[in-house]
Amino acid sequence: MDPTPFNTRLDQAMQATGSLVCVGLDPQPDRMDAPVADFCRRVIDATWRSAVAFKPNIAFFEALGPDGLRDLITVLGHVPDGRLMILDAKRGDIGSTAEAYGRAVFGVYGADAVTVSPYLGRDSVAPFLADPGRGAFVLCHTSNPGAGDFQALDVGGRPLYLEVARQARGWNAGGNVGLVVGATYPDALAAVRAAAPELPLLVPGVGAQGGPLEAAVRAGRDANERGLVVNSSRDIIFSGDPGAAAARLCDAVNAARARRV
Amino acid sequence: MDPTPFNTRLDQAMQATGSLVCVGLDPQPDRMDAPVADFCRRVIDATWRSAVAFKPNIAFFEALGPDGLRDLITVLGHVPDGRLMILDAKRGDIGSTAEAYGRAVFGVYGADAVTVSPYLGRDSVAPFLADPGRGAFVLCHTSNPGAGDFQALDVGGRPLYLEVARQARGWNAGGNVGLVVGATYPDALAAVRAAAPELPLLVPGVGAQGGPLEAAVRAGRDANERGLVVNSSRDIIFSGDPGAAAARLCDAVNAARARRV
Repeated sequence: MDPTPFNTRLDQAMQATGSLVCVGLDPQPDRMDAPVADFCRRVIDATWRSAVAFKPNIAFFEALGPDGLRDLITVLGHVPDGRLMILDAKRGDIGSTAEAYGRAVFGVYGADAVTVSPYLGRDSVAPFLADPGRGAFVLCHTSNPGAGDFQALDVGGRPLYLEVARQARGWNAGGNVGLVVGATYPDALAAVRAAAPELPLLVPGVGAQGGPLEAAVRAGRDANERGLVVNSSRDIIFSGDPGAAAARLCDAVNAARARRV
Repeated sequence: MDPTPFNTRLDQAMQATGSLVCVGLDPQPDRMDAPVADFCRRVIDATWRSAVAFKPNIAFFEALGPDGLRDLITVLGHVPDGRLMILDAKRGDIGSTAEAYGRAVFGVYGADAVTVSPYLGRDSVAPFLADPGRGAFVLCHTSNPGAGDFQALDVGGRPLYLEVARQARGWNAGGNVGLVVGATYPDALAAVRAAAPELPLLVPGVGAQGGPLEAAVRAGRDANERGLVVNSSRDIIFSGDPGAAAARLCDAVNAARARRV
């Protein structure tokens, strides 16, 4: 069997769906009017036509106990064919433990890709890349206020996050490595795109976190005007009309990605 | 209520138990002769007299699905009073998500402390430090072969892992920050101890990973000949006699920590 590499699957799904939008599933019980699994299924039903991917953040399910993780399995089982499932888990541990996380992420939950932390180095990421059909998005420059505490430190003439991008390129022999770069730092996004022209970028931070959409899309698009997945969570799922919110974001991203500067 | 800070609790437990040994609970079904919860409870019963703490790595429980995480709750509920529970989860995410992880770690699982990744910066660690009675061990220099890929990079005259140690010291206002430093790099351990004289160190990597015990203890002990927790997982739990293996490690650590060079 020669599985299609994850990055190719993602690119094909972008073309097939005409969308670069990822809907983040971050269920917070105090903001919801239905049980977690029902709430998330309703969001998926309302938004999938405008989405190329769904990204549950496992923290919000784990906070609900083992039953919450059962809900996560239910929710991921509800994602329609042709839409990819990125599990936002930010995992990172040494060899045998990373293998166990890989079994959880790809086996138990059935995700197509996972977010991982680079801090422990290449051998901590390798187990997530063993199957080319499944991908790993390596944290590069995150969207939060403290992102720069370490990520922006100079390491021999470049910031750490660009060294992460540089090394992550070297891990991409299977065609299944991506990078996480927050929309809240458009200059960092442009620098990462220049440093890793062929890697897909997972871009959180638009919407509730305030990142500028158009600048982010222009900075993050690849030579084919694709190559990035724009994630929005709270602004879609807690809006009164998730379907309309996802469609608006899809249109705005598509307008920005084709725009000449 | 003025809870005793976690680091004080840990130091008091070291004195009360006379042990710096942490027993790592990394259940791997293909190496066990009993179901996970039974296996781990048996290990705890056999080893607690020689241990100051237990450290389940959540990956091995998560790999078994939601039932595995139920087992984790059962196992942690079995840890005797006076022994601390460090959940090895290496979490790290932005504010609201880190809060959700905090609810899982301290609320759902009931751990006393957790391991966290520094890559996302101070605001990603802060939610784990909100309750001084609970602690967070920040990954500093890990025990794996690829630890140096990023951790050893020079950032303005010091390696990144020492910059992590330096910043983590500044997060310790509540007396509940520790650092993870692998025994496989004794020089790094000595440098971290010098950079952060008052922080407790969680030291994995002895035993199966081959780190030199005596050098690690001598490098990591604080001015009171305590201040570090030596973790061993596979060499204890998969030995024929976990109780004897834990007692041997406790004796070896105690011999090394009092030794004058």
